[in-house]
Amino acid sequence: MTTPALDNGVAAALSLIDGRKIDHVFFVACGGSLSIMHPAKFMLDQYSAALPSDVYNAAEFIHRAPKRLTANSLVILCSMTGTTRETVAAAKHAANIGCLTIGMSTLADSPLSEACDTTVGFDAPYTTGVPIDALNSNYARIYQLVLGLAKIFDGVDKLAPLMDSLGNLQGVIDKAHARFAPLFDDYAPQLAKEDVIYTMASGANFGAAYSFAICVLMEMQRINSQAIHANEFFHGPFEVLDKDRAFILLKGLDSTRPLEERAEEFLHRFGTGDKIMVLDAATLDFDGIAPEFRGNLAPLVFFDTLWRFIYKVADLRGLEMLEGRRYMKKLSDY
Amino acid sequence: MTTPALDNGVAAALSLIDGRKIDHVFFVACGGSLSIMHPAKFMLDQYSAALPSDVYNAAEFIHRAPKRLTANSLVILCSMTGTTRETVAAAKHAANIGCLTIGMSTLADSPLSEACDTTVGFDAPYTTGVPIDALNSNYARIYQLVLGLAKIFDGVDKLAPLMDSLGNLQGVIDKAHARFAPLFDDYAPQLAKEDVIYTMASGANFGAAYSFAICVLMEMQRINSQAIHANEFFHGPFEVLDKDRAFILLKGLDSTRPLEERAEEFLHRFGTGDKIMVLDAATLDFDGIAPEFRGNLAPLVFFDTLWRFIYKVADLRGLEMLEGRRYMKKLSDY
Repeated sequence: MTTPALDNGVAAALSLIDGRKIDHVFFVACGGSLSIMHPAKFMLDQYSAALPSDVYNAAEFIHRAPKRLTANSLVILCSMTGTTRETVAAAKHAANIGCLTIGMSTLADSPLSEACDTTVGFDAPYTTGVPIDALNSNYARIYQLVLGLAKIFDGVDKLAPLMDSLGNLQGVIDKAHARFAPLFDDYAPQLAKEDVIYTMASGANFGAAYSFAICVLMEMQRINSQAIHANEFFHGPFEVLDKDRAFILLKGLDSTRPLEERAEEFLHRFGTGDKIMVLDAATLDFDGIAPEFRGNLAPLVFFDTLWRFIYKVADLRGLEMLEGRRYMKKLSDY
Repeated sequence: MTTPALDNGVAAALSLIDGRKIDHVFFVACGGSLSIMHPAKFMLDQYSAALPSDVYNAAEFIHRAPKRLTANSLVILCSMTGTTRETVAAAKHAANIGCLTIGMSTLADSPLSEACDTTVGFDAPYTTGVPIDALNSNYARIYQLVLGLAKIFDGVDKLAPLMDSLGNLQGVIDKAHARFAPLFDDYAPQLAKEDVIYTMASGANFGAAYSFAICVLMEMQRINSQAIHANEFFHGPFEVLDKDRAFILLKGLDSTRPLEERAEEFLHRFGTGDKIMVLDAATLDFDGIAPEFRGNLAPLVFFDTLWRFIYKVADLRGLEMLEGRRYMKKLSDY
C-alpha cells in the first residue's frame, strides 16, 4: 500500500503555521469534540518539547482568558457541525487577539470555518450515516496537525509512519468489531439494566472514556456516568465499587497502560465479573500500525467499536439512541 | 489588621526559584490534593503570561513523561500526609530529571518532603481534628506560590493584597457557615436519600466540585457522583437531568460565573427545587477580601462549608463519614 498523502486541509494549515512564531497551542471545543483534544495533547506532550498546550472547554476558554493567549498562540478548535455556539465564539475571541485559528468541522462551509483562518475537514459516520474510512476521522486529522507541529517546531518528522498507520487504521477497526462482538453480546444484557456505569482509562484513552460517558451513556441513554481517570480511581472513586457496580475499562497501548492494568486488577478483585467490561487493545490485531502510534490510535478503535455495544444496549433498554435526547437539538432557548 | 507575612516555607521556595530559569510549571498530585491544583492553574493562567503550566495526576505525570518536563521545569506537588506513593514517586522522577521540586504537605518531615528540594507546610483540620485558620490552608499556601511566580517571572506583584485577603479569610468562612446553615438543613434530608448526586462548577471552583464528588460523596458516603463542568453540562450530561436528579451547583465569583449562572437556569427549569442545591458566593460577605481574589477564594469557602453539609447527610444516612471507606486506609496491597 502506498503512503496516503497528508490531508489537504492539514497541509494548508501547516503552511500557515510554518515560519510563524507560535509559543502556545490551545485545543478548544465542547463535549464530544473536546474529547479528542485530550489525546491530541497527549501526543503533543510526547512529541514536542517546544510547544506547551492547554485543553479547554470553549466557554471556559473565553471567560478564563488566560494570559498566555496572545497573537503568538495557535488555537485549534473543533465542532462536528461547525455550529456549536461556544466554539464559534471562542474562534472569534481568539481571532480578535490575533491568534492563528484552525477550525475542524465536517462541513467546509460553517460558522466555525468562517470564524477561523483555515479549516480542516473530517468525516464522521454519526452525522452522515455513511460508513467512513478512519483515515478521514477527527483523530486522524488532528494527529496530522500535531505531528506537523512537532516537525516544524521540534524538527521531529514522524508524518510518514503516521500516514502509513492511518491508511491501515480502518482495517484494524473492522477486525476489532469482529473481535469485540462476542464480548459485547455477553455484556449488553447486564449493562443494559444498570442505572450507573462508570468508564475508566488514562493517557491517550481518557478522552474516549470521557466521550462515551457524557455523549453516549448520559446523553443518549440517560445512564448516570463519570469518566474516572484510572489512577484517580484509587484516590476516592474506588469506594463506590462493590459487587453491584458497573464499569467499562479501556486498556490501551500507550505508556500509561500500567495505570489501567492496576485499575483492572482492583475491579476484578472487588467487583462482579459480568458488570466489569474490559476492552483490551492488546487483544486486537494492530498489524499495519507503527508500534509507536498504537497507543495513540487505540482510543479511536475503542470509541468506534463501543458504538456497536451501545446500540445493543439501547435495543435492550427500548430507548432508541437519539431518542434518549430530551434537550439537545430539541430545545433552542438555552 | 496588619498584613500577614508570607509563609516561611513559601518564602524559602521562592528564594530557590528566583534567578533560576523556569519555562514550565507542573502541578502534580492525586485525588483531593490534585483538586487544589486546578484553582492554582486558574490563578497562574490569569496572572502569568510567562509561565505555561499543566495539572497532572501523579501517576499520569510519570508515565506520560511529557517532553516539556526538563531541568527548567518547576514541579509543585502536594500530598496531605506526604506519603501518597504516586506523588512521592513523581517527586523522585522530577528530581532525577533535574527539575526544581516543591512538596506541599501537612508534615514537615515526610517521604514527600525528603524527595523534594523544599517543602511548604499547611494545616488541614481533617488530619488534625483541630480547627485551623484558613491563612494556613493548602489554598492559601499554593496561591502565595503562584503569585510569587507571577512576581518573579511577570513582574506583577499582588502579594500584599493577597496576604491581606488571606488574613481575613477565616472570618469569611465563619460567616459563610452561618449563612449556609439553613440551606444545608433544608437540603440534607432530600439529598441524603439520593444514590446519585452530581456536582457542578467552572473556573476556579471546578477543583472544589471535583473534590466534593470524588473524595466526599464517593469516598466517604458511597454516593455515585461526577463533577460536571458547568458548560460541558450542555454538551451531553444535561440529558440525565429530570425531576428526579440531584445536583449541587457552585456559583462562584470568578470570570467564569456566567457559565455557572447558565447551568443554574437550566437546572431550575427542568429539575426539582429540593434536589438542586445552589451555593452562591454572591450571597456571602467577602468583606476584607480584595475583589480581585474573591473568585479565587470562593472555592475554599464552598469546600469548607460543604463539610458541614455532608456531616448532616452522613448522620441522616447512618453512615459515619470515615466509615464509608472500605478500601482506603484499610487495605494496603493494591
